[in-house]
Amino acid sequence: MSRVNITAATGDSVVQPVRIGLCGLGTVGSGTFNLLQENAEAIAARAQAPLAIVHIGARRDNPACDTGDVRVSRDIFAVVADPEVDVLVELIGGTTVARELVEAAIRSGKHVVTANKALIAEYGNELFALAAEHNVALRYEAAVAGGIPIIKALREGLAGNHIEWLAGIINGTGNFILSEMREHRREFSDVLAEAQALGYAEADPAFDVEGIDAAHKLVILASIAFGIPLQFASVYTEGITRLTPQDLDYAEELGYRVKHLGIAKQGPRGVELRVHPTLIPADRLLANVNGVKNAVLVEGSAVGPTLYYGAGAGGKPTASAVVADLVDLARDLSAGQVSRVPSLSFANEALRDLPIVPMAEVETPWYLRMEAEDRTGVLSRIATIFSDHGISIEALIQKAPAAGQTTVPLIVLTNLAAQGRVDAAVTQIEALDTIAGQVVRIRVEFLDG
Amino acid sequence: MSRVNITAATGDSVVQPVRIGLCGLGTVGSGTFNLLQENAEAIAARAQAPLAIVHIGARRDNPACDTGDVRVSRDIFAVVADPEVDVLVELIGGTTVARELVEAAIRSGKHVVTANKALIAEYGNELFALAAEHNVALRYEAAVAGGIPIIKALREGLAGNHIEWLAGIINGTGNFILSEMREHRREFSDVLAEAQALGYAEADPAFDVEGIDAAHKLVILASIAFGIPLQFASVYTEGITRLTPQDLDYAEELGYRVKHLGIAKQGPRGVELRVHPTLIPADRLLANVNGVKNAVLVEGSAVGPTLYYGAGAGGKPTASAVVADLVDLARDLSAGQVSRVPSLSFANEALRDLPIVPMAEVETPWYLRMEAEDRTGVLSRIATIFSDHGISIEALIQKAPAAGQTTVPLIVLTNLAAQGRVDAAVTQIEALDTIAGQVVRIRVEFLDG
Repeated sequence: MSRVNITAATGDSVVQPVRIGLCGLGTVGSGTFNLLQENAEAIAARAQAPLAIVHIGARRDNPACDTGDVRVSRDIFAVVADPEVDVLVELIGGTTVARELVEAAIRSGKHVVTANKALIAEYGNELFALAAEHNVALRYEAAVAGGIPIIKALREGLAGNHIEWLAGIINGTGNFILSEMREHRREFSDVLAEAQALGYAEADPAFDVEGIDAAHKLVILASIAFGIPLQFASVYTEGITRLTPQDLDYAEELGYRVKHLGIAKQGPRGVELRVHPTLIPADRLLANVNGVKNAVLVEGSAVGPTLYYGAGAGGKPTASAVVADLVDLARDLSAGQVSRVPSLSFANEALRDLPIVPMAEVETPWYLRMEAEDRTGVLSRIATIFSDHGISIEALIQKAPAAGQTTVPLIVLTNLAAQGRVDAAVTQIEALDTIAGQVVRIRVEFLDG
Repeated sequence: MSRVNITAATGDSVVQPVRIGLCGLGTVGSGTFNLLQENAEAIAARAQAPLAIVHIGARRDNPACDTGDVRVSRDIFAVVADPEVDVLVELIGGTTVARELVEAAIRSGKHVVTANKALIAEYGNELFALAAEHNVALRYEAAVAGGIPIIKALREGLAGNHIEWLAGIINGTGNFILSEMREHRREFSDVLAEAQALGYAEADPAFDVEGIDAAHKLVILASIAFGIPLQFASVYTEGITRLTPQDLDYAEELGYRVKHLGIAKQGPRGVELRVHPTLIPADRLLANVNGVKNAVLVEGSAVGPTLYYGAGAGGKPTASAVVADLVDLARDLSAGQVSRVPSLSFANEALRDLPIVPMAEVETPWYLRMEAEDRTGVLSRIATIFSDHGISIEALIQKAPAAGQTTVPLIVLTNLAAQGRVDAAVTQIEALDTIAGQVVRIRVEFLDG
């Protein structure tokens, strides 16, 4: 392989490098540092300028990365104050110091690249406005689905489409847990403990398994897709902590698989924003995305369904997205303009505050499981309750009783039914003396184009 | 939904529309025309300027599209000559008139968007140089995999990666035929006739089933991925016409599925460029891409495997990609620069003329099927021949004879073996008097990350 002469590659005698200040030297920070070193030649040939890290802000060194003679400050705000820095890369996470840091960078005229989904989901509207005011870029490809270029696909690649809906596996830890539960019939708590030992899940796993992380990502995807302001508070979030291997099994028998999905839909009554366990037909590609991988299925009015799959987390995959943003920015800088693509794809003034459909009105088919006494008349009583609430039944299956149980599991698959109706029917069913305990409720989505 | 005020949306009092000349009004042409009408508001909000078709060049009208009072010329070169046209969209196909048209447009300072894979694959090097010389854009997202934004993913979204290999189902007709053959145990010729009746395959299907169309697309993907000049003549191309339902069945029994893949790999000896039927493990996502859909799997050094899936052809999906290019271009025009992203992602001067690995040296595992007399010593003779050629055998399976046959099918799965060695071994095996007819040879790829 011939060496690329970076200067010659740009057809210019002196090319100014893009000078990067890197804040945060954890897994993603060191991954970004190392990727920029290891692939420097190809990256410069693509960006048409070298990308040079000139200042690192990190509370401690990371043995995974040899920072050589790059300036390192323990005070990350020293990076913002450094006049040699053109672009600040924020990889510290969280929404307190990170927010201050990003705001300070923007105010001092620096471009910002971040992997911080919480920051964008919760404070993106204000930060994008601030960036526009200061004529700097704020990029966030790494904030959703790690290395999968889904932000670029939505902001640019599908720009001709009216996006009808999207559905994604956007939390790798949750998907790992569900994959393990299904494949090895293991309990949630058991797999969670393993995921923590493997370093996939945090010591406090609520962020992953309760769907908060997925909700952060979903709200970003939905805003770009539909042209609506970011609104994290509007997302309905339901975790996977109450799923049992038994329900995953029954789903499988019925031809479905259970995935923790982030779903955004645009319809005549507004926008649905929801994260919850979902039965999907087992032959769908999304159903076959296993382990820590992520995938997002997008339904566009012209293109139909498209799917984007890959690593949703991890140092190197996330670094891939951070560097893609840096290359993009370098290309913009070479063209002398950083705002060619509006932050949320739609011009700010064109963002519309569409209503969010209340969950009680959101219609899906449902998987419902209950423990019923094996007695004449129970089935017809239940069927009557559903009918009284206008819920039509697609299938009603009675399973054999578990060992030592006097009740039998009864599984109902409904047709499209609003959550409000289902809740009302379930309340009545749970009050029957022939029904033991609570009714398990999981939504179903066919993900049809 | 509130109406978007296009003028206000750009924050400017007068926004110049991007004026488009559309050449070709077939399926894709009318799809593009209609998409730009139907989704005009959202497209303008994203592009920050209206996209207006001002002149159509088409030999005949298309009832699928109401061109209203847009100027229509029967002579497509009238569109090039029109000073009101900023961007020429070439959707006539072929490499003769289309090439003249695109060259003329570039020479007259017009930007070009094309869906023409043959044109880019065969004449792209010259056309990109010409476009650079005239400082205009030449965009081709629609040339590969229809509506899937795979060109953008490779040129931009994965720009931080060293791309190690990619493998794609990039001809929908071929994939439809293989899906039908497998699912319904039908013969190739039978399904081909149906595909022709459905309009998926041309009257002369060679382009699709012999792999020429896939080779066009592969060479474009490989050039962007590896930073090498376009070189259509270097692609090894093998069609699907000799595949039998029997081989698809045996593959399935062994845990594989047969797909017609375009594969590009970068290794120490150079670049492999090949289109051929391939056994892949049945649990891979690519193995589960069925019907006319396309998908491309890309292995990046940082991100690992990512996959892009969607409609690879058809009027509306291809129009989605054409309009994405137009939005991209409009955004570039608003920034006053159209060459921020080099045509093949790498700066022209950084393109490297890497050697192409001769097929005889390309190593893959192999699926080999032969008809052998069911007699003592045949297996050991065959095993010896493989061993003599340094080919190690992973599995050797003898099937039951087909009704009325005196020979038995013998299936050999090899470990990694260069084609040259396999060819030599097969020549010797075919010369044995205990072997009837020819040995079926299909490559195997694990597609491991």
